[in-house]
Amino acid sequence: MKALRYEQGRLAVNDIARPIAGGEALVRVTLSGICNTDLEIARGYAGFDGTIGHEFVGVVEEVSGGAQASLPAGHRHPAGLSPGTRVVGEINAGCGTCDLCRAGDPRHCPSRTVLGIVGRDGAHAEFLKLPIANLLPVPDEVSDERAVFTEPLAAACGILERVAISEDTSVAVIGDGKLGLLCAQVIDTTGAKVSLIGKHENKLRIAARRGIETITVNEAARRTSQFDVSVEASGSASGFALAQQLLHPRGILVLKSTFHGKTDIDAAPLVVNEISVVGSRCGRFAPALELLKAGVVDVESLIDQDFPLVAGVQAMDEAGKAGVLKILLRP
Amino acid sequence: MKALRYEQGRLAVNDIARPIAGGEALVRVTLSGICNTDLEIARGYAGFDGTIGHEFVGVVEEVSGGAQASLPAGHRHPAGLSPGTRVVGEINAGCGTCDLCRAGDPRHCPSRTVLGIVGRDGAHAEFLKLPIANLLPVPDEVSDERAVFTEPLAAACGILERVAISEDTSVAVIGDGKLGLLCAQVIDTTGAKVSLIGKHENKLRIAARRGIETITVNEAARRTSQFDVSVEASGSASGFALAQQLLHPRGILVLKSTFHGKTDIDAAPLVVNEISVVGSRCGRFAPALELLKAGVVDVESLIDQDFPLVAGVQAMDEAGKAGVLKILLRP
Repeated sequence: MKALRYEQGRLAVNDIARPIAGGEALVRVTLSGICNTDLEIARGYAGFDGTIGHEFVGVVEEVSGGAQASLPAGHRHPAGLSPGTRVVGEINAGCGTCDLCRAGDPRHCPSRTVLGIVGRDGAHAEFLKLPIANLLPVPDEVSDERAVFTEPLAAACGILERVAISEDTSVAVIGDGKLGLLCAQVIDTTGAKVSLIGKHENKLRIAARRGIETITVNEAARRTSQFDVSVEASGSASGFALAQQLLHPRGILVLKSTFHGKTDIDAAPLVVNEISVVGSRCGRFAPALELLKAGVVDVESLIDQDFPLVAGVQAMDEAGKAGVLKILLRP
Repeated sequence: MKALRYEQGRLAVNDIARPIAGGEALVRVTLSGICNTDLEIARGYAGFDGTIGHEFVGVVEEVSGGAQASLPAGHRHPAGLSPGTRVVGEINAGCGTCDLCRAGDPRHCPSRTVLGIVGRDGAHAEFLKLPIANLLPVPDEVSDERAVFTEPLAAACGILERVAISEDTSVAVIGDGKLGLLCAQVIDTTGAKVSLIGKHENKLRIAARRGIETITVNEAARRTSQFDVSVEASGSASGFALAQQLLHPRGILVLKSTFHGKTDIDAAPLVVNEISVVGSRCGRFAPALELLKAGVVDVESLIDQDFPLVAGVQAMDEAGKAGVLKILLRP
């Protein structure tokens, strides 16, 4: 099968053997999405060699006889996950035996593999395999083009697991890229007062169409010390600084972007203003699928272009260009 | 009167006019303590010019007729604060009219002055003035040599305002200086499992005598991912990195030290492990006075040396030397 792989410092679409289910589920990928993490892996930042990609929608091809055995204690084979079922899949695959895994949350299992990121071939391929416990059926109402956003949308939903946000909360989201647009929309569904701060009029417009207040970076300086919560989704040190400035004392800064290497952070205001910085990574898929099913989040407007998998290297080049939103790959 | 002042880049003990109560309380200082913040101010880091010092115990000299008027709405003149009363004083003096001040907590008032730190002459002097609402009488059981630790002890108590710590919480305090020793002891009073991590056997011994587990920095590497909460009280970037490493996923890192300028922080693990970094600055004085009155915290062992105020510059030199604990000034 074809797969977009990063190996020994080189990115290429290669022909490799189709994975063998071997106690897991084999999924035929219908559509996959390129994430900034993929770009970082292809720059060698993550120490990962193999098939990249972790955002996908697909169809169950095979559920091996031993798949039930791979479920953590207390978990049952999800109903209806037979060959032919359209699925998305949570990306962290735990050991199944540690306390975290037995509690049903392998996201911080110290021995976890992560689809296309840590020790497990990923989704920019014709087929992938994942533990059957990771798969969720996609509701009929949700098209492939929407379902492929489940993973990044779940990551945005993960903020709500980490910080209490209600109608009374004022939230500034910094960064109008894919991540920021999803975070702003997810937080907006809580009824909170959300403002999206960015540099690109065309991107801000996507949020504005959903009734979200949008602010240019230049205007943001006037909103210093006004927010309860800020979400850093720009991935830049200047975004972090702005996220600090916008908070009133004892505010909460959600760190959503992954910063690579050392970042110069002015930590003194964190202490003086008693700010909390809350790291947030992966979210659960079920709430994200609910939002997609309810049609309350615009993900279609985030799609920039669609490439065949065989043009994966070119697609990655395109995804790395400034201002480009989501690039999809079709095996 | 004599006062230890930092002015135009120069530290000196000068003769200046005694402050006029003018609607506040005038306090004759009995004893003051040199804090690392004083050293930082004297390096020009804080942009403060004036009398330095914010840790003190003293005696009320004069309560001006207008002092009652300076109290925030809803606050009454504290009982028994007449001339001759032994007092300590909270260091943040708010505007008295903003929402925070009216709620009785001026610590984050945007217009606040701070004793010896922001816009208000400080405590390394024969006299100081503070709003009467800031003063608390010192219980008879607490000697001046203990009462002078109320401010830094309150700062340590401030951690408990910011993070829920109970008997089931495992806490690592990083840094065996004055701040770390106070933080470890305060957290120990909650029944939590506290470990103090430092480099100096003689300082670690102060905590060990209170039954607190002590760990050398070299040994700490073996405790990676084991703690619920870590407290960064070393003021070094390496201390911050260690504080991260010691936490299990979703742990809480309390930032207690003030870092000056930009700090190189590896922010990626904050996101990957979903760590919360919680800034903590000033605490309320009442809980600290309770601990001093109950005799459950050893502050005497933190006293290194006692200088007359006139030798303030020499005392500051001494306080800046490696390994030196608390230096006191006696007007």
